Amino acid sequence: MAGETLHIHFLGTAGALPTPQRNPSCIMIRRGSDTILFDCGEGAQQQMMRARTGFTVDAIFISHWHADHYLGLFGLIETMGFNGRTEPLRLYGPRRIFEFLSIIRQMNQNISFPIEAMELSDGDEIQFDGYRVIAFGTRHGCESYGFILREDDRPGRFDREEAIALGIPPGPLFGRLQRGEEVTVSVDDVATIIRPDQVMGTSRPGRIVVYTSDTRPLIRWPNAARDADLLIHDATFDDAEEKRAGEVYHSTAGGAGRAAAEIGAARLALVHISSRYTSTVSHIQDAERQYTGEVLFPQDCSMIEIPFRD
Amino acid sequence: MAGETLHIHFLGTAGALPTPQRNPSCIMIRRGSDTILFDCGEGAQQQMMRARTGFTVDAIFISHWHADHYLGLFGLIETMGFNGRTEPLRLYGPRRIFEFLSIIRQMNQNISFPIEAMELSDGDEIQFDGYRVIAFGTRHGCESYGFILREDDRPGRFDREEAIALGIPPGPLFGRLQRGEEVTVSVDDVATIIRPDQVMGTSRPGRIVVYTSDTRPLIRWPNAARDADLLIHDATFDDAEEKRAGEVYHSTAGGAGRAAAEIGAARLALVHISSRYTSTVSHIQDAERQYTGEVLFPQDCSMIEIPFRD
Repeated sequence: MAGETLHIHFLGTAGALPTPQRNPSCIMIRRGSDTILFDCGEGAQQQMMRARTGFTVDAIFISHWHADHYLGLFGLIETMGFNGRTEPLRLYGPRRIFEFLSIIRQMNQNISFPIEAMELSDGDEIQFDGYRVIAFGTRHGCESYGFILREDDRPGRFDREEAIALGIPPGPLFGRLQRGEEVTVSVDDVATIIRPDQVMGTSRPGRIVVYTSDTRPLIRWPNAARDADLLIHDATFDDAEEKRAGEVYHSTAGGAGRAAAEIGAARLALVHISSRYTSTVSHIQDAERQYTGEVLFPQDCSMIEIPFRD
Repeated sequence: MAGETLHIHFLGTAGALPTPQRNPSCIMIRRGSDTILFDCGEGAQQQMMRARTGFTVDAIFISHWHADHYLGLFGLIETMGFNGRTEPLRLYGPRRIFEFLSIIRQMNQNISFPIEAMELSDGDEIQFDGYRVIAFGTRHGCESYGFILREDDRPGRFDREEAIALGIPPGPLFGRLQRGEEVTVSVDDVATIIRPDQVMGTSRPGRIVVYTSDTRPLIRWPNAARDADLLIHDATFDDAEEKRAGEVYHSTAGGAGRAAAEIGAARLALVHISSRYTSTVSHIQDAERQYTGEVLFPQDCSMIEIPFRD
């Protein structure tokens, strides 16, 4: 579990209006064999084809009910049915999620698989196998959430030399200690219990990916977002449009950079880019003025891997 | 009016499942300054960007309520509002159109312009300035319509030599006769009335474009479809899949070819291509075995002009 791969597919990085090159919001996260989506803008299914990810999505989180964040659900669900899906799909979103589910059922009349909807509130944590997704309220002029994917802590490192010094013979007993079990060994003909904490280092944090969706820069970040391996932040505008960004409840690239610095993110990805920009230069410069980490300006259908920090 | 340009933009030519190269069904017809859509599959707005057509659509005809024919409406209407549209949008479709309109209003909560919906029945004719659109029932296992765009007849040719022989001096009187007015001239000092039919040939047919949407080959074609300048026909499968085509109420390329031959179409465009095909060869061969006219296999965002036959 601790060694699961973690990949981010940027399937849609456009602002409210798509462009010929950028689709509306959709971020796919693949962890091991799990696949979840943060938002699902129009054309998400086609982006999955282009990025060759397949459609085996387990759960979809919708940040808010602006059309550029959810219209792709209808076609994706239609295509999942076409492909004979039978596994349940979990759907999370703000208030109105059940109204939305009834629209889905009205429009897609032959859904071949169960859809389990759940309404989100600030601070909700959804537990998956080896990680959880935490919803946090954002500043977008409507009920809107960002999402933190946070892996469970990993066990500490196994101290092989210490184990041998304690009289444990290399072999299956090592594995039992690594799995958290006590073992009994004979030391100078005395049965001695060795506890895991005698040979295992302190537990190490899992990886953290934070997605803000549409928002003004946050005033106060949830603790769970600190030290994120990747912050995917609204950067609708460059800093020249700071006033406009405030009026429409979005962020500038500089605001995204300040956020990345504040939470100590290892990397920052700028998304939700307004269709007015054809160059990446001003965004990257504005973010880098505020933040010394790595700034990414992902194209649609690009993918990055999130490594462990240690 | 008789000289209006007539262009067909193939914005979506995929079957039920899009591919990275083909979007779901959407045909844009531009006649002079009018723009209408036949169907509006997911991502239509982005195809309009790619084809550089703009979004000034006057009317949208939905053939039937399968998701690959209408899901693009939501995003397109959203973007029209974003662009400040105020002109009414006319929306035509089968039964359920009003239910569908209420879903649009539920999802797009700030529509800045009126949407006028109208339910279609077999044989309905919608008159536009200089042409009409005729709905005809098709064979798709549900209520589904094809559409015929049929220009009004054009005036006959003006016989300049005959007009001069009748004593009409070249000048403004020619124009009045061409506009259908009688004129009075002095012949041998006698006031003589010249009627337009003395100098104008018989009226000439306008252009005809037929779109079947999804269907089995028709048993009987509406007369209004005869001598079409372009037939845009379902060709989901090649002829090797004739059995499958019958099962799912679609056509093969050969079936489309027979239809084009039967109505005397000048050109045939094969659309609604199943995602299983990556080559155009079998479709074109199958259609050309049945039909000696020009067979088109349009790519998405391609455009053709429809010339007058004479």
